[in-house]
Amino acid sequence: MGWGDLGVFGEPSKETPNLDQMAAEGMLFLDFYTASPLCSPSRAALLTGRLPVRNGFYTTNGHARNAYTPQDIVGGIPDSELLLPELLKKAGYTNKIIGKWHLGHRPRFHPLRHGFDEWFGSPNCHFGPYDSRERPNIPVYRDWDMVGRYYEDFKIDLKTGEANLTQFYLQEALDFISKQQASQQPFFLYWAIDATHAPVYASKQFLGTSQRGLYGDAVREIDDSIGKILKHLQQLGISENTFVFFTSDNGAALISAPRQGGSNGPFLCGKQTTFEGGMREPAIAWWPGHIPAGGVSHQLASVMDLFSTSLSLAGVQPPSDRQIDGIDLLPVMLQGRLIDRPIFYYRGNELMAVRAGLYKAHYWTWSNSWEEHSKGIDFCPGQSVAGVTTHTQEEHTYLPLLFHLGRDPGEKYPLSFASEEYQRAVEHISGLVQQHKASLVPGQPQLNVCDQAVMNWSPPGCEKLGKCLKAPESDPKKCSWPH
Amino acid sequence: MGWGDLGVFGEPSKETPNLDQMAAEGMLFLDFYTASPLCSPSRAALLTGRLPVRNGFYTTNGHARNAYTPQDIVGGIPDSELLLPELLKKAGYTNKIIGKWHLGHRPRFHPLRHGFDEWFGSPNCHFGPYDSRERPNIPVYRDWDMVGRYYEDFKIDLKTGEANLTQFYLQEALDFISKQQASQQPFFLYWAIDATHAPVYASKQFLGTSQRGLYGDAVREIDDSIGKILKHLQQLGISENTFVFFTSDNGAALISAPRQGGSNGPFLCGKQTTFEGGMREPAIAWWPGHIPAGGVSHQLASVMDLFSTSLSLAGVQPPSDRQIDGIDLLPVMLQGRLIDRPIFYYRGNELMAVRAGLYKAHYWTWSNSWEEHSKGIDFCPGQSVAGVTTHTQEEHTYLPLLFHLGRDPGEKYPLSFASEEYQRAVEHISGLVQQHKASLVPGQPQLNVCDQAVMNWSPPGCEKLGKCLKAPESDPKKCSWPH
Repeated sequence: MGWGDLGVFGEPSKETPNLDQMAAEGMLFLDFYTASPLCSPSRAALLTGRLPVRNGFYTTNGHARNAYTPQDIVGGIPDSELLLPELLKKAGYTNKIIGKWHLGHRPRFHPLRHGFDEWFGSPNCHFGPYDSRERPNIPVYRDWDMVGRYYEDFKIDLKTGEANLTQFYLQEALDFISKQQASQQPFFLYWAIDATHAPVYASKQFLGTSQRGLYGDAVREIDDSIGKILKHLQQLGISENTFVFFTSDNGAALISAPRQGGSNGPFLCGKQTTFEGGMREPAIAWWPGHIPAGGVSHQLASVMDLFSTSLSLAGVQPPSDRQIDGIDLLPVMLQGRLIDRPIFYYRGNELMAVRAGLYKAHYWTWSNSWEEHSKGIDFCPGQSVAGVTTHTQEEHTYLPLLFHLGRDPGEKYPLSFASEEYQRAVEHISGLVQQHKASLVPGQPQLNVCDQAVMNWSPPGCEKLGKCLKAPESDPKKCSWPH
Repeated sequence: MGWGDLGVFGEPSKETPNLDQMAAEGMLFLDFYTASPLCSPSRAALLTGRLPVRNGFYTTNGHARNAYTPQDIVGGIPDSELLLPELLKKAGYTNKIIGKWHLGHRPRFHPLRHGFDEWFGSPNCHFGPYDSRERPNIPVYRDWDMVGRYYEDFKIDLKTGEANLTQFYLQEALDFISKQQASQQPFFLYWAIDATHAPVYASKQFLGTSQRGLYGDAVREIDDSIGKILKHLQQLGISENTFVFFTSDNGAALISAPRQGGSNGPFLCGKQTTFEGGMREPAIAWWPGHIPAGGVSHQLASVMDLFSTSLSLAGVQPPSDRQIDGIDLLPVMLQGRLIDRPIFYYRGNELMAVRAGLYKAHYWTWSNSWEEHSKGIDFCPGQSVAGVTTHTQEEHTYLPLLFHLGRDPGEKYPLSFASEEYQRAVEHISGLVQQHKASLVPGQPQLNVCDQAVMNWSPPGCEKLGKCLKAPESDPKKCSWPH
């Protein structure tokens, strides 16, 4: 989902009454970022509070390439990483993930091995359908065991776009919340639904209801579900004791537009890129009675802050033996403070850009290669900024491209290298970069090796269902990451 | 000002608390259009309720060219046109225009000859400064007489951007409203300020206060002024008896960005073009106690509707001897109705595009000529849609380019000519076009002839001020309209 997909962020169809209402009752973050323009690294960063380059969710197979966790990925979240649910557990929290995990699908990476108590959802994206010979369909888990597979047991009709997944995920959420409330247990619910990821789907009652086509139907169903979750918290009388945050894991995938892709508002490009369209996210914090209603913040914030903020709320100290990139947003939300901190934009293990205040310096630019672009893969459809949305990797290390995101949120007008404003801002940002790089200890890259043998052939529980498939022989290879 | 310039329309700096509040207390129009992507024709359409091609505010000097009323224009609003204030007068209204008139500056076109009772402002744009030999500075009028000139008596500091004009215009508005309330007279105030038109200006207290630079300072001052006007109505106890509408005369001028130009949000291109960025406008209706607070409308609406709506509010019948393009929006605002009607996008006297429902058909496309583009004049900076933002005038009369503005508000993905959806939508729109063209009686084009002798050399009142200048000999020529 993109920054521009909600009515409250200026989507012209204005079809998200529940999220708009959530913003009216809570706080809107206008300068909120993901940690990667792609799903897996972004979600790993959310749960570890650390940049993908630290937690291992990157590749070194090519320079400045995005990587994620398809079925043949060998890596996943390292045991050495401390995830938010692991830490919350110490404070007595019950933790559930509903939806897409995406932090690795081999047994050692299972979410219940990393702090979650319950899981309903899938380890990978809902791509398919597959033939179960070349490639198995993606499993859906309940807790430790697979309970079926997408397309086989959990239908997604690619022709009509119909699938009931969001409704299943909604019901799971409502049930879990009810159960926790009944047992007076503190809980962490990671509601990681994926209806706006291509292939886009919605349940029947939402199909054809949006002005925006199928993608809009999916957004409306998510919006409706969030409205129901918030209402459920209120009806259970626990809304003033429950912190809720809404955001997305990367900008809208413009390659899938117009039928399957969303909007990044006035921002440049989308998913896969380190321009604002790829990494600035819609974000709303909600905590009635604590966060003032109708608040708006320009705090430079990140999905990684949700790690630190959640620990702070639970009274748990963040780990002190490692670098945590997240910050505690409570002073921002409760006292309206602004904390000075930069935003780092990575692609793979390359620091592509840095934002400090309203300035953003690009050290490297590219969208995708000419070769990919010539195949019709366009991360910036209808947009082209000379020297910025480049199709070769352009290095600007010694003379970064600088944008002022207040005057130029669309990153169209690089500041003159000769200007005093440029000199001052780049000097400041260069200092931040030096500091950042000096202390950086990259994690072991997890997204380098692919092997058909590790696919979801025989997930735990497959015997009971008669759904075990025969894996091919192991043949590990360097994964190919074109973007 | 562009669609994307207000916080409530998704401007990322969210610096328009008063306009956002006006929307929260009133009704937001998301699909509101001007009648031309340029100032003079748009303002003539607003005041006559008629398309510029009918009221004469167009040129036939070139095909599909935008024209306006610079100092050397010979034409202006024809006496045969009935303006909103003329009609309101019959119902006892006192009418005032504050700010830019732009409907012709020769004596016969003076606003007090066309129904206004009072005027404080100028006939043309605040361009300059001029040397008063080649070209006089633009006069500022109070009622019938000039009271000074821009740059000479009404300062605009082009270096700092400082000018107090919006404050003068605000004070005029507050005083006029007070006076009308005191005398219990119904009134029509046309507050036609122009601070976001390049050269952009703001008064000292607003300079440097926006994240968006000087343009943002100007927007903030307008926002602040509108807040003060609405508050004034409330304090005088007449807010429930006063209908207020906020909109702009064309999309943000992207040629002036990033320092002097605004944002059209997710829409394509800007001022001068018939893409959405050129003609879709921010629009808010406010009438406490009548228009429900927090309303949102997808009514396809137009500045020309303000003519018909205002007459309806005043209980005055619109003229029956001519085609009126505006419709009465009261059922939309008071009963939430949606009225089926198309939007016509003109450039000069060429019908460039038509919107019906969510479909928009382009019969002609172009942004500007290669020649102009090569001079750096770019109406679509950073944007380029093949076959759409063309630099030659492309005719699509027999096979219009069709866009679905719900799925594709940015006009990036023309529908396939072969699709059933295309066939159905184009057939419908073609019928509307035939009907429109069959009954169209173009007015006498007013923007064809230019003459240095008609410039503001000796406006009425210049003698008293010692500010009369000598006009050159009359030398009428065809005006040159490059865009």
